Amino acid sequence: MSPVETARPGSVGVVETQYVDLPGPLALDCGRELSQVRVAYETYGELSPTRDNVILVCHALSGDAHAAGVSATPGAESTRDGFAAEERDGAAGRALGWWDGMIGPGKAFDTDRFFVVSTNLLGGCRGTTGPGSTDPATGAPYGADFPVITVADMVRTERAFLDALGIERLYAVAGGSLGGMQALQWAVSHPDQVDHIVVIASTHALHPQGVAWNAIAREAIRADPDWQGGHYEGTGRKPDAGMGVARMIGHVTYLSGQALDDKFHRRLQDRDDLAYSITEPEFQVESYLEHQAASFVKRFDANTYLYTSRALTYFDLARQHGDGSLADALAGVRARTLLIAFSSDWLYPPVASEEIEAALRADGKDVELHVIDAPYGHDCFLLEEARQTPLIRAFLGEGG
Amino acid sequence: MSPVETARPGSVGVVETQYVDLPGPLALDCGRELSQVRVAYETYGELSPTRDNVILVCHALSGDAHAAGVSATPGAESTRDGFAAEERDGAAGRALGWWDGMIGPGKAFDTDRFFVVSTNLLGGCRGTTGPGSTDPATGAPYGADFPVITVADMVRTERAFLDALGIERLYAVAGGSLGGMQALQWAVSHPDQVDHIVVIASTHALHPQGVAWNAIAREAIRADPDWQGGHYEGTGRKPDAGMGVARMIGHVTYLSGQALDDKFHRRLQDRDDLAYSITEPEFQVESYLEHQAASFVKRFDANTYLYTSRALTYFDLARQHGDGSLADALAGVRARTLLIAFSSDWLYPPVASEEIEAALRADGKDVELHVIDAPYGHDCFLLEEARQTPLIRAFLGEGG
Repeated sequence: MSPVETARPGSVGVVETQYVDLPGPLALDCGRELSQVRVAYETYGELSPTRDNVILVCHALSGDAHAAGVSATPGAESTRDGFAAEERDGAAGRALGWWDGMIGPGKAFDTDRFFVVSTNLLGGCRGTTGPGSTDPATGAPYGADFPVITVADMVRTERAFLDALGIERLYAVAGGSLGGMQALQWAVSHPDQVDHIVVIASTHALHPQGVAWNAIAREAIRADPDWQGGHYEGTGRKPDAGMGVARMIGHVTYLSGQALDDKFHRRLQDRDDLAYSITEPEFQVESYLEHQAASFVKRFDANTYLYTSRALTYFDLARQHGDGSLADALAGVRARTLLIAFSSDWLYPPVASEEIEAALRADGKDVELHVIDAPYGHDCFLLEEARQTPLIRAFLGEGG
Repeated sequence: MSPVETARPGSVGVVETQYVDLPGPLALDCGRELSQVRVAYETYGELSPTRDNVILVCHALSGDAHAAGVSATPGAESTRDGFAAEERDGAAGRALGWWDGMIGPGKAFDTDRFFVVSTNLLGGCRGTTGPGSTDPATGAPYGADFPVITVADMVRTERAFLDALGIERLYAVAGGSLGGMQALQWAVSHPDQVDHIVVIASTHALHPQGVAWNAIAREAIRADPDWQGGHYEGTGRKPDAGMGVARMIGHVTYLSGQALDDKFHRRLQDRDDLAYSITEPEFQVESYLEHQAASFVKRFDANTYLYTSRALTYFDLARQHGDGSLADALAGVRARTLLIAFSSDWLYPPVASEEIEAALRADGKDVELHVIDAPYGHDCFLLEEARQTPLIRAFLGEGG
């Protein structure tokens, strides 16, 4: 990492991931308890003396606590990948935070004003307790014995973590995709402790096609014999092949068909004619997917994928909090709500945000929705920083 | 099979699959030759004395020669599945042809008038020579040593097969999806021998997202250790797990998001509350996919899937016949062309048919395109018979 990078305008600089061990056990939705929970986190900016400037940033399926700046850990790999990494990191592989474009001095989440906190979510594989952690009851890794968790459990963990830091109120909770679900859950579970939520490219309940894609990705992992019933830790084998397939499926759902067309067309891989092979990548889009799969399995845990995918599939505010009615589920919300969706996002389509907006309006709540016309699909929430920034800054109040 | 079924109006009745061994070797696009090629086929209706009433029907990825009527083979399984099977076969599992609703007396392809011929395509696993067949050079199954084939190779096989039957001209070639590609290829490869083509829910070149889905499905199969490098025949093991994942991916791409929503919503499986499991299906759409995968692996060969998926991905009329120009590729077409597309088909979207229409019009050819507004996605070509029938009958000339 060169001094030039750390000095670039808007960067929070070099950041070290820290850890907190929660003092008590966590009671989970499934009825089980988790004890000795550790939470990995990073912070950016300064906590105000009155502790009234805290923004919690929540990551999506494959992210981690390293949301901004340059990692202090030597050799750390960025969780940014796919189009997001390519568009901005180039080939250098610098461990930039996954939302570095949004968090920093003068950025959407302005660290000159706010104290931004980012944690690795419960069930994660990047420092927070998850299926790869040691079960204190057995001394062995949990593996598939890890309890099945929900988005509400992730929020419980974040609540307990903030308690440990001595932070009671949140000026805002923000996130995209699964991160947006956590923001919504915060507003429902802790209405008196959250002033604003920023919910980007998210939903109150994943639609059945999204449920299907997630089920297929999980099936690909479980079908890999190296998954070994979820107890692969310590065996020297892990379900990389299945994870690769799962990641490929994810990738295609995160992008729009148009984005794939614009980037790859039907161009062949390094040649002008067909190779006539059923094993080798032939089209550039095929080799791109192989590359994405190979880099993902190096940095991400298959069981974390299973548990996180399950949690985001379960998430259903109307079912869990409103007896089927989204307006009832959101009736207690006190936070002001900013919703951002992207026209080309077919995994978390704008209609889901429109449903949230309509339910909040029916409840007489303060809500604004912006649908950004952009071509990249779901990944827009990581790519379209320039257009999200003024919306978020205005929503959070530009003044000091 | 009850007499009631064979007697129902519009049925071609009980049909037996027949076989022809081609007299000479087939020269393939990849540069290799295949000898001792067998073709499985069925026919419906009567060949006219002047042999001028032949319609060749071409199947899609998972079909076979049994296109219409009730199979004479005891215990034969229908290749109709998914929504198509459920909507019409019910639970009885009668081996109805995959396009039974379209072929028969008074139907779209009217067997009172036409002699309809249906073959299992080259590389298939239902009677025509494919990777599961014995390689005469070694006496062992080809497996992954089977040559990589193209849509043009499928058409070469169909041409040689019709020669063996003594049929020179085709009144029409018809098919959906990969079957539509074969119809297009017929019009390009044999312009003087085809009077009409009916190209349904198809394309001149699969878009990159479709290329990606096919690549992921193939990767799922190859990643299964039971694939064994493609030489699983005779080992007692076959890549059912990988095939299951491939089929699930295919299924979701064949349906529209709206169709999945209408059919399953987010309903849970046989219970009112969550089971908190990462291994069991929880939502009805999850268990539906599992069921589809389990029934598919029983009847279909994984290597055939790989080769057929590769062939339909390769298909690119402009690249292969027009030096990049679709209009140039289609300049020699003499057949009248009927194109049908479905509004909700995102795998073979209407825009692909519009491109074919525009290219044929630019060439001054006789073409008509109908985009049917229907909700089921790509599977519409198997489901929307009632609305396709009058279009096809009118196109083929109602008179006798």
